[in-house]
Amino acid sequence: MKKIEAIIRKSKYSTVRDALHEVGVNFFSYWDVTGLGNEKEGHVYRGVSYSTSDIQRRYLSIVVNDDFAETTIKTIINSAGTGEVGDGKIFVSNIDECYRIRTGEKGGNTLK
Amino acid sequence: MKKIEAIIRKSKYSTVRDALHEVGVNFFSYWDVTGLGNEKEGHVYRGVSYSTSDIQRRYLSIVVNDDFAETTIKTIINSAGTGEVGDGKIFVSNIDECYRIRTGEKGGNTLK
Amino acid sequence: MKKIEAIIRKSKYSTVRDALHEVGVNFFSYWDVTGLGNEKEGHVYRGVSYSTSDIQRRYLSIVVNDDFAETTIKTIINSAGTGEVGDGKIFVSNIDECYRIRTGEKGGNTLK
Ligand SMILES: Nc1ncnc2c1ncn2[C@@H]1O[C@H](COP(=O)(O)OP(=O)(O)OP(=O)(O)O)[C@@H](O)[C@H]1O
Ligand SMILES: Nc1ncnc2c1ncn2[C@@H]1O[C@H](COP(=O)(O)OP(=O)(O)OP(=O)(O)O)[C@@H](O)[C@H]1O
Ligand SMILES: Nc1ncnc2c1ncn2[C@@H]1O[C@H](COP(=O)(O)OP(=O)(O)OP(=O)(O)O)[C@@H](O)[C@H]1O
Ligand SMILES: [Mg+2]
Ligand SMILES: [Mg+2]
Ligand SMILES: [Mg+2]
Repeated sequence: MKKIEAIIRKSKYSTVRDALHEVGVNFFSYWDVTGLGNEKEGHVYRGVSYSTSDIQRRYLSIVVNDDFAETTIKTIINSAGTGEVGDGKIFVSNIDECYRIRTGEKGGNTLK
Repeated sequence: MKKIEAIIRKSKYSTVRDALHEVGVNFFSYWDVTGLGNEKEGHVYRGVSYSTSDIQRRYLSIVVNDDFAETTIKTIINSAGTGEVGDGKIFVSNIDECYRIRTGEKGGNTLK
Repeated sequence: MKKIEAIIRKSKYSTVRDALHEVGVNFFSYWDVTGLGNEKEGHVYRGVSYSTSDIQRRYLSIVVNDDFAETTIKTIINSAGTGEVGDGKIFVSNIDECYRIRTGEKGGNTLK
């Protein structure tokens, strides 16, 4: 199983959620975070310039079976963008095991 | 070391925390998230029906030594449930290294 | 690529952020969490004593290329501490893949 973490613009959330639903990804968790992106602008601190404003982002954490990872990633890339810098990032990592608390069962079937 | 992430009902938090304390898991972090579970009900969108209401969940992140992982998972399963759908999920992943900031020391001893 | 998660005192956040900027780590995400540390003090519950107060912490999630991990960790250890118990923890894990949403490109170059 794979964990797909996407840090997106808050304004694109409902577009991304609906696009994920359309490809069958109905279960995930999200919360709001502050993002420091790679903006080289704004004030100068010890010779390097940084963005002065932190950006409010939405963090989506989605665990899927391996054969769903590519679809999930493509769907986010195709729905979360505006074309402007700051559209966000996706990070993919491995999940060793998954459990459904109600039944105690484990494995990829709990993700369906 | 293993990271155990549990997404539980907020109403079960203190029961889960006390159960973890009883088996010696005294250190973890938590925050509140919104959960989209696998509810196939509610309004219909492009032919598929979804839950209309997002659910407030509590996200627990617990890093433990390998020999503590099973106890931690069992304790959550045994304490977080109500028997109704929506009791939550547990995800297990690998942690390569761990540091205690105060001392700079690393390794599994920093988890004890 | 590595994910470096640091759970620090909120009061040390701007010091840590500035120290990270100085070594070239300009991009990360953070949010506030509640921490249950390893404090064996406070009230007694079934024979074991626990801290009665949960602590507000700041959770930093930083994805870096492998050759930047050590610098990032050292910088956090050197900037986040007060010398008192409760300075926080750092967890390191593996990231399989990374994408920049705007361009769709993947790999370690998206972290620069
Ligand atoms: N290396 C990173 N680790 C953790 N979070 C990151 C990292 N890089 C970016 N983020 C998060 O993603 C958000 C969006 O980043 P952003 O879209 O600006 O990436 P970028 O690579 O600079 O792309 P662009 O060139 O399109 O701006 C940031 O505000 C931050 O929350
Ligand atoms: N694949 C997933 N990725 C990320 N978070 C998830 C995933 N599945 C569930 N969650 C989170 O867990 C919460 C609870 O899920 P839930 O208990 O409904 O799981 P379930 O598999 O549908 O089990 P049940 O049949 O008992 O309802 C969701 O609200 C969501 O926050
Ligand atoms: N094993 C863990 N899993 C998840 N989060 C943890 C874990 N241990 C500590 N934390 C988080 O880190 C915060 C700080 O922990 P703390 O600095 O007290 O660690 P410690 O090992 O007890 O070090 P010290 O001896 O300096 O107090 C906690 O409040 C909690 O949010
Ligand atoms: Mg950017
Ligand atoms: Mg459900
Ligand atoms: Mg402590």
